[in-house]
Amino acid sequence: MSTVKDIYSFLDVVAPFSTSAPWDNTGLLVGSETKEVKKVMLSLDVTSEVINEAIENKVDLVITHHPLIFEPVKSVTADTLLYKAVSSGVSFISSHTCLDIANDGVNDCLAKAVGLKNIKPVEEDVFLKIGEIEEKTEDEFVSLLKEKLNCNVLYNSTGNNIKSVAFCSGSGGDLFALAKDCGADALLTGEAKYHEFLDASFNNITIFSCGHFETEVVVIDCLKEKLQNEFKNIEFIKVNQKNVITCK
Amino acid sequence: MSTVKDIYSFLDVVAPFSTSAPWDNTGLLVGSETKEVKKVMLSLDVTSEVINEAIENKVDLVITHHPLIFEPVKSVTADTLLYKAVSSGVSFISSHTCLDIANDGVNDCLAKAVGLKNIKPVEEDVFLKIGEIEEKTEDEFVSLLKEKLNCNVLYNSTGNNIKSVAFCSGSGGDLFALAKDCGADALLTGEAKYHEFLDASFNNITIFSCGHFETEVVVIDCLKEKLQNEFKNIEFIKVNQKNVITCK
Amino acid sequence: MSTVKDIYSFLDVVAPFSTSAPWDNTGLLVGSETKEVKKVMLSLDVTSEVINEAIENKVDLVITHHPLIFEPVKSVTADTLLYKAVSSGVSFISSHTCLDIANDGVNDCLAKAVGLKNIKPVEEDVFLKIGEIEEKTEDEFVSLLKEKLNCNVLYNSTGNNIKSVAFCSGSGGDLFALAKDCGADALLTGEAKYHEFLDASFNNITIFSCGHFETEVVVIDCLKEKLQNEFKNIEFIKVNQKNVITCK
Amino acid sequence: MSTVKDIYSFLDVVAPFSTSAPWDNTGLLVGSETKEVKKVMLSLDVTSEVINEAIENKVDLVITHHPLIFEPVKSVTADTLLYKAVSSGVSFISSHTCLDIANDGVNDCLAKAVGLKNIKPVEEDVFLKIGEIEEKTEDEFVSLLKEKLNCNVLYNSTGNNIKSVAFCSGSGGDLFALAKDCGADALLTGEAKYHEFLDASFNNITIFSCGHFETEVVVIDCLKEKLQNEFKNIEFIKVNQKNVITCK
Amino acid sequence: MSTVKDIYSFLDVVAPFSTSAPWDNTGLLVGSETKEVKKVMLSLDVTSEVINEAIENKVDLVITHHPLIFEPVKSVTADTLLYKAVSSGVSFISSHTCLDIANDGVNDCLAKAVGLKNIKPVEEDVFLKIGEIEEKTEDEFVSLLKEKLNCNVLYNSTGNNIKSVAFCSGSGGDLFALAKDCGADALLTGEAKYHEFLDASFNNITIFSCGHFETEVVVIDCLKEKLQNEFKNIEFIKVNQKNVITCK
Amino acid sequence: MSTVKDIYSFLDVVAPFSTSAPWDNTGLLVGSETKEVKKVMLSLDVTSEVINEAIENKVDLVITHHPLIFEPVKSVTADTLLYKAVSSGVSFISSHTCLDIANDGVNDCLAKAVGLKNIKPVEEDVFLKIGEIEEKTEDEFVSLLKEKLNCNVLYNSTGNNIKSVAFCSGSGGDLFALAKDCGADALLTGEAKYHEFLDASFNNITIFSCGHFETEVVVIDCLKEKLQNEFKNIEFIKVNQKNVITCK
Repeated sequence: MSTVKDIYSFLDVVAPFSTSAPWDNTGLLVGSETKEVKKVMLSLDVTSEVINEAIENKVDLVITHHPLIFEPVKSVTADTLLYKAVSSGVSFISSHTCLDIANDGVNDCLAKAVGLKNIKPVEEDVFLKIGEIEEKTEDEFVSLLKEKLNCNVLYNSTGNNIKSVAFCSGSGGDLFALAKDCGADALLTGEAKYHEFLDASFNNITIFSCGHFETEVVVIDCLKEKLQNEFKNIEFIKVNQKNVITCK
Repeated sequence: MSTVKDIYSFLDVVAPFSTSAPWDNTGLLVGSETKEVKKVMLSLDVTSEVINEAIENKVDLVITHHPLIFEPVKSVTADTLLYKAVSSGVSFISSHTCLDIANDGVNDCLAKAVGLKNIKPVEEDVFLKIGEIEEKTEDEFVSLLKEKLNCNVLYNSTGNNIKSVAFCSGSGGDLFALAKDCGADALLTGEAKYHEFLDASFNNITIFSCGHFETEVVVIDCLKEKLQNEFKNIEFIKVNQKNVITCK
Repeated sequence: MSTVKDIYSFLDVVAPFSTSAPWDNTGLLVGSETKEVKKVMLSLDVTSEVINEAIENKVDLVITHHPLIFEPVKSVTADTLLYKAVSSGVSFISSHTCLDIANDGVNDCLAKAVGLKNIKPVEEDVFLKIGEIEEKTEDEFVSLLKEKLNCNVLYNSTGNNIKSVAFCSGSGGDLFALAKDCGADALLTGEAKYHEFLDASFNNITIFSCGHFETEVVVIDCLKEKLQNEFKNIEFIKVNQKNVITCK
Repeated sequence: MSTVKDIYSFLDVVAPFSTSAPWDNTGLLVGSETKEVKKVMLSLDVTSEVINEAIENKVDLVITHHPLIFEPVKSVTADTLLYKAVSSGVSFISSHTCLDIANDGVNDCLAKAVGLKNIKPVEEDVFLKIGEIEEKTEDEFVSLLKEKLNCNVLYNSTGNNIKSVAFCSGSGGDLFALAKDCGADALLTGEAKYHEFLDASFNNITIFSCGHFETEVVVIDCLKEKLQNEFKNIEFIKVNQKNVITCK
Repeated sequence: MSTVKDIYSFLDVVAPFSTSAPWDNTGLLVGSETKEVKKVMLSLDVTSEVINEAIENKVDLVITHHPLIFEPVKSVTADTLLYKAVSSGVSFISSHTCLDIANDGVNDCLAKAVGLKNIKPVEEDVFLKIGEIEEKTEDEFVSLLKEKLNCNVLYNSTGNNIKSVAFCSGSGGDLFALAKDCGADALLTGEAKYHEFLDASFNNITIFSCGHFETEVVVIDCLKEKLQNEFKNIEFIKVNQKNVITCK
Repeated sequence: MSTVKDIYSFLDVVAPFSTSAPWDNTGLLVGSETKEVKKVMLSLDVTSEVINEAIENKVDLVITHHPLIFEPVKSVTADTLLYKAVSSGVSFISSHTCLDIANDGVNDCLAKAVGLKNIKPVEEDVFLKIGEIEEKTEDEFVSLLKEKLNCNVLYNSTGNNIKSVAFCSGSGGDLFALAKDCGADALLTGEAKYHEFLDASFNNITIFSCGHFETEVVVIDCLKEKLQNEFKNIEFIKVNQKNVITCK
C-alpha cells in the first residue's frame, strides 16, 4: 500500500521541494499525507474542470505544476477553487519551480523536445540554461519550434543565424540580457512582454516565445513515466486539459 | 427560509464587519453564503471539540468570536482545524474585534455584568471605555469581580479606593497608561503582563485582570438572544466549551 | 517661429504630463526647450532605427509614446540609445501614461478603432474604461478585432456572447477582475499573461489580447492631426517603424 | 578597594553582556564605573520603592535583572524613575537576557528549583531548554510546582502524564510549539496568553504558567552567593521586594 | 513665585514647541517643572563649561538653543554631559528649530543684524526666508557681513551684484537651489559644504557662509530681553561661551 | 595607439573601481571605451569651465575625482552639465572613493604633503588612517598646515600638544570619535560641521579642518606622474581650476 506521503517523498527526490523559489508554494497543499493512493492524475494547472475530472475519475491525488494556493488565503468559501478542492477529499501536491529547475525537469524536457545538445547551466540564474543546435537560419529555427512544440512562435526578427540557444520554460522573457551575456544567439521561452522584445532587438538577440503552456506541458509525460516506474501498483493518468489560450 | 447570508447581514448590523481592526479577520471564513440555515451554534473559540460538537449537533453554521483563520494560510492539510472545518460542510462566521467594540458588544456586556454605570467611550482607543461604580475599597472590588465574573483576580495592589473604572475585555493590559490619563482609578481587563502590572504600580493605577475567557464569555447569551429574536425559525445553541485554562 | 517648449506646452494641454503614473518618466527627456522646431517625427518607441531615421530626415524633435529613459541612469556611454540620442542633437519628448488616459488618448483611440460606444471611465483604475458594442458571438468579435486592428487575437474561449467590453491599450491583462466587477463580458487589451487567461476563465470573463503595438499605434494618426492643426508651419511625419514582434 | 567596574567585569564573566538579546539593554545603565563599592543590593526589578530602599541602606550599586531604561529616552525629568536613579548617586547595572541564558543563570535556577535532570539546550532558541523528571500525573506535577515555586499554576489540562519538560523562565508562552517539536510533554514558564493555551491544547502539549516573578526570583540567592564569594569585603543584600501581582 | 513650568509656557508662546522639526528634541529635557526659578542662564550650546558656569552662578534653569539630548539614550553614565546635567539639579529647556523659525526668532534676528528689509517667508521651506538690501557689489556685501556679524566669510565668487538675499541661520547650505528658484542673488547662511558651493556656482547663485555660531548667537540678546520683560523678578544672564571654532 | 579602455584599465589597477563606496559612482561615466586617446586632462571636479577647457584644449578624456553624475538622472536636457559633457564628444572617467583609499591615493598624498610618518590604517573605517609627527604645540601644528597645504585652518582649540594625527581627506569631520578611540591627538580633514567641533571638544580631541579642495588637490600631481610614466605617447595636462571657495 502506498500513501500520499510516499509519493511526496519520491517527488522530493525527483525535484526537492526545498529548492523552490522563495515566493513559490509547493508540496502538499491540500489533503492528507496518510491517505492510501490507488489512482493519481497529473495536470499542469488546477482549474474547476481539473477538479471535476479528478472526482469523476475517482483519483486520490492530483499532482500539478502550478500551485493550487498562491497568495495566502484568509477564508475558504464555497465560491473558490480551494473550497472545491478540500471538499472533494482529493489530495493536491504542487511541484512548481523545483520541477522547473530539476534534472529532467520542465526546462530540460523543453530542451530535449527541441533537440538541444551540450546543455549547460547558467550560474547567475537557475531558471536559465544554455544549449546548442546545428546552425540554422531564423526561419528554419521557427519551423523547427512549430513542429516540435506544436505552437505559434512570436519573435523579434534580427536575421541572425541560430546556433547557441538559452532557454527557460514558462515566463522567461526578462532573461534575454543574461542570455546575451552568456553568448546565446537566442532565448527560447514561453512568454515575453512587448518591451522585452524591443530591448532584445537593441541587444541583438532574438527571443522566441512559444507559449507558456506549450513550453511546460512537455514535462507531463516524462514525469508520469518516472512515477509509474516507481509505483507499479498505482494507476497514473493525464488530465484532459488543453491550453486555455486560443489564437486566431 | 434563511441562509448564511441572512445571518451574516444581521450580524453586520449588530457589529459591522468593516469596523474590525486592520489586523483582524472577520466575516464568513469557511462555507457558503447561499446555504440554508436551520441550526446555529455560538462559541467563543474554534477548537477541535467545537467542530465535533457542531457536527454531532448537525448545526449549519457556527458563529465564533475568535477567527478560525488568523494568519493567512498557504496549505490546507488534514492535520489542521481549517481542513476539519471545511470538510465538515458547516459554515463559520467570525465576529471578533467588531463585536468587541459594538454597542451591546463584548466590552459593554462586561461592564453590564460588573454593574458599571455612566459608560463613556475613550476617544484615543475604541477598545477602551470608562464607567463608574459606587466607591469601594480594593478588597470589596475584588470580591465583586469574583462574584460577578466567577473568576480569579490578579492585581497590583495600590491600596486605592475604586470608583472610576476603565475596562477592556480580553487582552487589554497595555491600556493602563491611557486609562490613567482618563482619570480612572483602575483598569479592568482579561489579561496583563507582569511588566504592565509593574508599570501600572509606578503610575498609581490598579490593573484587575480577570481572565481572557471570563471577560469575553459574557457576550454569548446576549448575542444569542438577539439572534433568536430576529430568526424565530432557527434554533440557536451555545457550545459546551469551558475555559481552556485551569488555575490551581 | 516655434520652439520645443511650444510643442511641449501644447502636449501638456492635450495630455497633462502631471497626470502620468508615479513610476513613469515623461516630458522633455533629451534636448533643449529653446531650440527652434521645423520638423517633428512621431513614433511609438525609441529604437536605434528610430534615431537613425530622425537624423536622416533632419527632424528637430521626436515625440514618442514609450520613454527613452525609464530606469534612472548613472552613466551615458557610447553603447547606449541615450548617448546616441543626446549626440544626435535631436530633442525627445515622451507622452506615455498621460497620453494613455487622456481624452482622445491611446485608450480612447483603441475604442474608436473597434467601434465601441457609450464609453465610461472605471473609477478604480484610470487605465480601464468600459464601452458597448452590438451583441456578438465570440467568433464574430474575434473577426471584428482582426479586421479593425490588423492583428492576431489570443483569448480564453468561454463561449459567452460579447456586448459589454472593458478595454485597456498596451499591457492590461491584470485588469480582468476589475473588468468583471464592472459587469464587462470581456477585457480587450494588448498583452496578458498565461495565468491571467487562466484566472479569467475561472472568473467567466474573456480576455482578448490583440498585441501591445497594435492596440497603441492607433493613437499616432490622431495625435499627428492635432499637432498639425495647431502648428501649421511645422512638418509632422510618422516614423516608418513596424511592430518588433513577428508571429508565425 | 573594589569599584563598580570590578563588579561589572565579574558579572561579564558570569553572564557576558554581549550575549544579551539585540532588543535588550544591559550593563552599567546609570552611574560611574570608577566609584568605590562597599555595599550592593540585588533586585529583580527597579521600582520607586527599590530606589528608596537603596538610598536608605546606603548601597553604592544596585544589580537588577530587568533594565532601568528599556526604550531609549529623549528627556530625564523629575517625574521619572531614571531621574530619581541618577539623582540618588547610586549606580545601576542590569543583567537581563544574558543572565537568563547563562550557565547557572535564571533559567537553570528554575530547573534546579523544580528538580529537573538531564538538562539540554534547544538549538533553535537560546531561551528554551529541556529536562526530565520522574514521570508524574498532571495533578502531581502541579502540586510539585506549587510547593517548589510557591505559586499559583495556570495550565491547559490535557490529562497527559509529564516526564519531559521544556522550560523558559519569565515570559515564554510563545515557545510551546518549539517545545512540542523537541518532544516535550509540557512547557514550564512564567507567563502565557490565553490564545497560547488554546493553541497548545490543539497541539497536545500542556503549558504550566507559574508567574513571571516566581520563575525568575529563584536566581537572586544564587547570584548573591557567587558575588559574595568573589568580593569578600563587600556587603551584598537582597531587596525586600515582593511580587507586584496579588492573586485572589 | 515663578516655576520652570511658567517659563516653559512663555517660551511656548514665543516659539511653540510643537512647531519643532520632527527629528528635533525640544522642551524640558532635564529637571523639574515645579521647581521655583530665581536665576536663568541663556546659552547657544550645552558644554561641560556651560554646566560648570550654571552651577557656579547658582542658576535654576538653563535655556539653550541646541538640545542637551539629541539621539535618544540607553544609559546615563558619569562620563556624559547628561549625567552631569541631571546631577547638577539644574533644569534644562531647549528651544531649537521652533526658535529658528519663530517670529523674531533666530533667522529673523540674523536678517535684522545684517539690515535686510521686506522679509518674506518661502513657502516650500520654513527655515528659509528672503529679504532685500540696497544693491551692492560682492565685495561690498562681504564687508557688510564681516562688520555686522564679526565673522569670516566663505563664498563662491560669481561676480554678481547682491540685492535679493535668501537667508537661513545655522546650517543651510543645501537650500541654495530653492533660494535660486525664489529669485535670490545670494544665500546667506552659517555653514555650507564644498559640493554645495560648487553646485551653487553652476546655478549662478552665491552662498555666503558666515559661521554656524555667528549666524545664531544674534538671537540670545533678543530672547533675553523678552524674558526679562515678562519675568521682572527673575535674573537672566548670558553664558560666557565663545565660538568653539578658531580660524587661522 | 591607446584607448579610453586602456587608461580605464590602468586606473583600475591604481585604484580598483570595485573598491568604491556603495553610494559612489565611478568608472567611465560618459563617452566611449573604444575611442583613441592622445590628450588627457586631470581635474578634481567637473564644472562648466572644466568642460570648456577640455574642448579648447582638444582633450579626448577627462579624469576627475568627483563624479560627473551622482544622483541617477531621468533626463538629459541642454541646461545640464551632463548634456554639455555628452555633446562635447569628450569621455569622462571618475576615480573617487576608490582613489581616496588607494595606496598613494588622495589620503596618502595628504599625509605625505604634511609630513606624517608611520602611517597605519584604521580597521573600522577605510577612509581614516593614522600617522605621527614630531610633537608640536597646537600653534606650531597650525603653522605647519598653513604652510604645507596653503590653506586657512579651522579648529577647536584644546591646548593639547599634537603628535598622533588621524587624517581623512575631503569631508571627514564625523570621524573624530573613531580618531579619539584610536588614540589620536587630532583629526586632520577637509570639512567639519559646527556640532562636530563642539562634540570633539567634549571628547578632548582637536579637529583641524583645512578645506575640502586643499586636502584633495594634492593627489593630482601624483596621479599625473603615474599616468605619464605608463602612457609615454599621451599628453597629460592639469586643469586650470581653482578652489571655488573664497575666504575673506
